[in-house]
Amino acid sequence: MIDPRVASGLRDLLPAVMIPRERILQTFRETFASFGFVPIETPHIERMEVLTGKGAGSDEVLRQIFEVTNKGGTPGELALRFDLTVPLARFIAKHMDEVGVPFKRYAIGSVFRGERPAKGRFREFMQCDFDTIGVDSRLADAETAQIIHGALAAADVPAFTITLNNRKILDGALETFGLTGRSSLVLRSLDKLAKIGRDGVAAELQRPADAGGAGLDAGQVERILEFAETGRGTAAVLDEAEKRLGANAQAAQGIADLRTVLHLLEAGGVPQEHLAIDLGLARGLDYYTGIVFETTVNGWEKFGSIASGGRYDDLASLYTTRRLPGVGASIGLDRLLALLEEAGTLKSATSTAPVLFANFPGTDPAVAVRMAATLRQAGIGCEIYPEPIQVGKQMGYGTKHGHKLAVIIGPDEVAAEIFNLRYLETRHEDKGLAWSVLEDSVRGALEILEQGGLQS
Amino acid sequence: MIDPRVASGLRDLLPAVMIPRERILQTFRETFASFGFVPIETPHIERMEVLTGKGAGSDEVLRQIFEVTNKGGTPGELALRFDLTVPLARFIAKHMDEVGVPFKRYAIGSVFRGERPAKGRFREFMQCDFDTIGVDSRLADAETAQIIHGALAAADVPAFTITLNNRKILDGALETFGLTGRSSLVLRSLDKLAKIGRDGVAAELQRPADAGGAGLDAGQVERILEFAETGRGTAAVLDEAEKRLGANAQAAQGIADLRTVLHLLEAGGVPQEHLAIDLGLARGLDYYTGIVFETTVNGWEKFGSIASGGRYDDLASLYTTRRLPGVGASIGLDRLLALLEEAGTLKSATSTAPVLFANFPGTDPAVAVRMAATLRQAGIGCEIYPEPIQVGKQMGYGTKHGHKLAVIIGPDEVAAEIFNLRYLETRHEDKGLAWSVLEDSVRGALEILEQGGLQS
Repeated sequence: MIDPRVASGLRDLLPAVMIPRERILQTFRETFASFGFVPIETPHIERMEVLTGKGAGSDEVLRQIFEVTNKGGTPGELALRFDLTVPLARFIAKHMDEVGVPFKRYAIGSVFRGERPAKGRFREFMQCDFDTIGVDSRLADAETAQIIHGALAAADVPAFTITLNNRKILDGALETFGLTGRSSLVLRSLDKLAKIGRDGVAAELQRPADAGGAGLDAGQVERILEFAETGRGTAAVLDEAEKRLGANAQAAQGIADLRTVLHLLEAGGVPQEHLAIDLGLARGLDYYTGIVFETTVNGWEKFGSIASGGRYDDLASLYTTRRLPGVGASIGLDRLLALLEEAGTLKSATSTAPVLFANFPGTDPAVAVRMAATLRQAGIGCEIYPEPIQVGKQMGYGTKHGHKLAVIIGPDEVAAEIFNLRYLETRHEDKGLAWSVLEDSVRGALEILEQGGLQS
Repeated sequence: MIDPRVASGLRDLLPAVMIPRERILQTFRETFASFGFVPIETPHIERMEVLTGKGAGSDEVLRQIFEVTNKGGTPGELALRFDLTVPLARFIAKHMDEVGVPFKRYAIGSVFRGERPAKGRFREFMQCDFDTIGVDSRLADAETAQIIHGALAAADVPAFTITLNNRKILDGALETFGLTGRSSLVLRSLDKLAKIGRDGVAAELQRPADAGGAGLDAGQVERILEFAETGRGTAAVLDEAEKRLGANAQAAQGIADLRTVLHLLEAGGVPQEHLAIDLGLARGLDYYTGIVFETTVNGWEKFGSIASGGRYDDLASLYTTRRLPGVGASIGLDRLLALLEEAGTLKSATSTAPVLFANFPGTDPAVAVRMAATLRQAGIGCEIYPEPIQVGKQMGYGTKHGHKLAVIIGPDEVAAEIFNLRYLETRHEDKGLAWSVLEDSVRGALEILEQGGLQS
């Protein structure tokens, strides 16, 4: 016997998780499409060179890469993708003439990272990315946040906050405080504010450069931290930033851009309470150059961001000389699902069809097959129990799997052309309904259940 | 610069293919769910031992396996899955107590085989599998064919034929002709009838066993070929088979089982003309023990089967001592798409949203953002051109991408609270419509286009 376990850090997804996961994915696809984004797919396997090109991924990510070889292949030539951004950059460099710009694409797929296995961390997880490429546009910036909002709201994610900032404001602040050369290190430290706290960040910023710190003095640290903590909010925070940094051209541009984005988000119907400006939000990656986003579920901030992104100046510089600015975001589906599960708001289900037809011993299953086909035509999913075992056991199967109703037809019912309709949870049964009212009866019963149901 | 090509045998999927592909996948998911099948997902990476266990895959498939390693991992330990059946067997052995039987699951995902690259053959392709596990049931057999029919019909696949046979009939025939010990070889040869013709199969069957043939004499070959070619059809072919083999218990059981399946398929509304019995259909794999299926698109038989499967006695014997019979099928999505593309029946599209809002120079895009949000609420997808470039160029973008309508609002229209509605294909434009009739106008125009449209 071979042990049927999965490899370390990987996992099977069972129906109770997969059913809501598929539902959420479908709302994401529909939301992306409703904004005119088009799907693309790239292979799970990329050439190693594409993945490890300078700057394609952080050193940490590159250490976690899975190499792929087949018989007769050259070792070290192929690997599994670790995100959907590098493949997008390669894709656009290769297919630019076919797809043209502006190019609005979405991509949903598994990515692989050989991280040390830990609770809630998996070596394969799903990303849902969307980007608008080839334009430097505030409308596209705003639309990115609008889509995060639309997708999460459609997926019934509870109260969440999309936090915005603009790297131009941060760059202006660093310029104003005389810290221009050290921006990468400072921004990376600032990102840890929520995680390691004010004192932790202050210590990191003061640590000498040769010890991996930013080497700031106490005054500089105080100024940058005080600025980063201007407060979360929307318009008022920008007014405050303008007071402090308005004289700096970069910061002024960043502030104006965020005001335009807030104006467009209001027009797009994104409620104010879902938005926050956080002047300390940096999104460490060096390649962001304009707006940046993070999204947290209120009260579940410890899960980190479930939808993040930002604007970049040059997506595909490793693969083409053409400069391609863009803006986009990635929704971490598996992290979101883990959060919803822990928060108890995941509408779990183990059945995809609301109606179970009994397979009554001694009756021709063709009767059930014919009736089920009629209901499916009317858009009502139906399962027929596959074997004519004891009907009580079949009802137990339906109850366990979350079917709502059972249709039961024994030999007497066949002779009289009637059926019994059983509410599986309460065990209430409507007996002797005519075959001719099947669709109406089932639809009516499902509506009753939908509206809070029958008491047992 | 790094060359942005994909590795040999792999490919990118562009929007023109991905849009219909996503649409077809969604109809498959809905069809599976409407029969009560539930989704599961297993990792792309499995332990090598699971994939290469005796009988898990054919020697050919095992030679094509992609090995996976990460830094610190043991070489030879992990590999990419080459189908969804082996992972299903492992899954059910591992999670049997949680999911219980009968277990009706579907799984959709990429599989990987290091085949020699050739036109239309890819090293990564998508399979759509569904199986009913844990029961030996004619209803489940029939349902498998009913779902193939339902899924392909819902995906607008042109006239296709689901060919059925039952291994018990073939086993009975071999028994009757005194060829029991040589069934594997004979069945594998019979499968090639369509490909290499009668003479080719006859030669193979007569070739001595030590030269890889079945070692039959001319009389045996004639009898088996004549039987395999009894003719394609439905009930009549079974009557003929009964005349010849009725005395054999196995064959009689297989014939009775197929008759039950045909009876249930009729009840399920599967039209006769989509079904055929072919007594020569074997589906080489040793593990099939009952009904077998293949599906071809009429006139495009050279593409091979696009949906195949059958009944097996024991799914997971490598991983558990529990005997798990089942029946299932796999739809080869990528082969189907290649066929539809070549047949010219693939409804290609490069846009997911029917309406394009112009981004008129000198007007606040918030107007378009607000209107687009209203239309999306009403279920009408809308894209707003991201930059205020020359409107003619924006219309060119819409025409190229297959948007149907454009909404154009310049400064004069903003002042008067009106808009112009342009039919992108014919360039007809309805001018001066009031903002209050936006939804009705757009819906009306889309209906006009749906019904054959406006003449240019």
